[in-house]
Amino acid sequence: MPGTVNELERNAALQKAAEILKSADNILILTHKSPDGDTIGSAFGLCRALLKLGKKAKVICNDEFPKKFSYIFEGLESFDFEPGLIVASDVASTELMGEQLAPFSDKVGLCIDHHPSNGKYAAFTVLDPTAAATCEIMADIIPLLEVEYDKDIANCIYTGLATDTGCFRYSNTTSKTLRTAAAMVDYGADIATINKKLFETTSRARLELERMVLDTIEYYFDGRAAVITITNEMEEKTGVSDSDTDGLPSLPARIEGVEAGITLKEKKDGSYKISLRTGRTLNASKICATLGGGGHAAAAGCRVEGTLEEAKKAILDAVGEELAKIEGEGTT
Amino acid sequence: MPGTVNELERNAALQKAAEILKSADNILILTHKSPDGDTIGSAFGLCRALLKLGKKAKVICNDEFPKKFSYIFEGLESFDFEPGLIVASDVASTELMGEQLAPFSDKVGLCIDHHPSNGKYAAFTVLDPTAAATCEIMADIIPLLEVEYDKDIANCIYTGLATDTGCFRYSNTTSKTLRTAAAMVDYGADIATINKKLFETTSRARLELERMVLDTIEYYFDGRAAVITITNEMEEKTGVSDSDTDGLPSLPARIEGVEAGITLKEKKDGSYKISLRTGRTLNASKICATLGGGGHAAAAGCRVEGTLEEAKKAILDAVGEELAKIEGEGTT
Repeated sequence: MPGTVNELERNAALQKAAEILKSADNILILTHKSPDGDTIGSAFGLCRALLKLGKKAKVICNDEFPKKFSYIFEGLESFDFEPGLIVASDVASTELMGEQLAPFSDKVGLCIDHHPSNGKYAAFTVLDPTAAATCEIMADIIPLLEVEYDKDIANCIYTGLATDTGCFRYSNTTSKTLRTAAAMVDYGADIATINKKLFETTSRARLELERMVLDTIEYYFDGRAAVITITNEMEEKTGVSDSDTDGLPSLPARIEGVEAGITLKEKKDGSYKISLRTGRTLNASKICATLGGGGHAAAAGCRVEGTLEEAKKAILDAVGEELAKIEGEGTT
Repeated sequence: MPGTVNELERNAALQKAAEILKSADNILILTHKSPDGDTIGSAFGLCRALLKLGKKAKVICNDEFPKKFSYIFEGLESFDFEPGLIVASDVASTELMGEQLAPFSDKVGLCIDHHPSNGKYAAFTVLDPTAAATCEIMADIIPLLEVEYDKDIANCIYTGLATDTGCFRYSNTTSKTLRTAAAMVDYGADIATINKKLFETTSRARLELERMVLDTIEYYFDGRAAVITITNEMEEKTGVSDSDTDGLPSLPARIEGVEAGITLKEKKDGSYKISLRTGRTLNASKICATLGGGGHAAAAGCRVEGTLEEAKKAILDAVGEELAKIEGEGTT
């Protein structure tokens, strides 16, 4: 398995995380803003496990949780408490907590994460960058809490595994990811329903948006980069919700010969959110870092102020520089 | 695990298949026409295992194998022999062998398959309808041949598992499917490259076709059925190859509220190939059977002679009848 985590060290870290959790009560679990399946799945998977131990626990987020994940959090009791322990799940940096969670950012006792860029802002951090998802780490912590898996916990963990790997398609998928998913199925995860909902369901509005977006494709650097644009106008015309645009950033990267798939999404404040997906030759995280962003080697993002043309130029310049370096090295 | 196969019976059948294979030489392996990842992967996985045992073996097909699967069969020696044993892999009926393989149809010694509709045309049949793919069965036969897995065999088996489950998205995926895939990763399957090639790569022509196809969407039965059409003209205009249309039939079924996703594909002879994808409420195989076709509960197909309008009416009538039955039962 690739990565730098020694298995003994990993096990020791998991054990310590379990001890911190077991000795605490009134546990507040933080997720990252613009929440995805992994931060929601890992946080609620942990929350449900802690509730089974008779503890009080709750999950909070800067933004609303997308409705498509309602099976993860519905039916949970809401508690009001002074936190005895603050846990951050899948939150790589305090900035990613968002404004509303900022007051907690210097009080995090335990952080569980798989982002290599993790800022180590917590008193104790379990960081496994070889894990495809934070849920893959959480799946190993839950049994150490001496909690038995049930269908609900399994649904949470499966969700993060599936969403962070594009349902086991992306290159971060390992045999451990697949085995963890298999275990969740055996614990009762309803993967047929979850997969259908998350990966095989498209709204009519989303299909209409896709058609519009397909009209915007532009190719650069001899077809090695492809750019698509999503404007506020398109979103208004089709009436898509924000989560309806999920997955679109992987579209340009899927095109044959494209090494850098770029998505420019206009934001309400006039800035552009840029998503970059790269093949094996380019490091998306490194490229986005030059524009103040970050992420993973194959998928990263940043935000650029200015017009569409300015945003496009900024990311294309950054991509072009890396492509030139590769050519300089004689790699194709 | 759902299904009707008793585990002891399954193991006995696998053992018998292994004995038949071990005691044979000059083994000819048949695949089904319009070959997909499962028939190709399972046949070549077996072929490569038999070659490792020092036997002569080869795989044949009525049609050419799609180029995207070239990693499965490239570098294999070609043999000329009088078959000592004929094996059919993932071939549900002798009709599916196609014209060129018809001469072998009554001489099949061993059939390995997962289609519930299997015609039991072979002297001995290993049929496990609970398996997501024939490759899932083949994965259990190979160790019984006392062959050690290698990267090439693992790539073959992984391919069938992934293609028949839409990369583990479809409802036929079980924990056994995921564990078998995990094992293939550990045996060296290069899933990052395979997934990228099979699931994350689109030609420009295919994208252009998608845009045209999105223009043809029609809804019926209050949005419970959606129909898309792929015409010869579209194929000519975009210059797509036949395998470039793979996966399009899952498009209409992905639309929210759609229980029957119908794809009408014009064939060169003027007939229409109909693909039907259904949700949990409808049985696609049963509906297509009324038009002389077949397949699985969630994905089936048939062919209808006539104009586009006639083909559309035929399948919509069949779907409407089943939808009416469901309503009659009071199920929604």
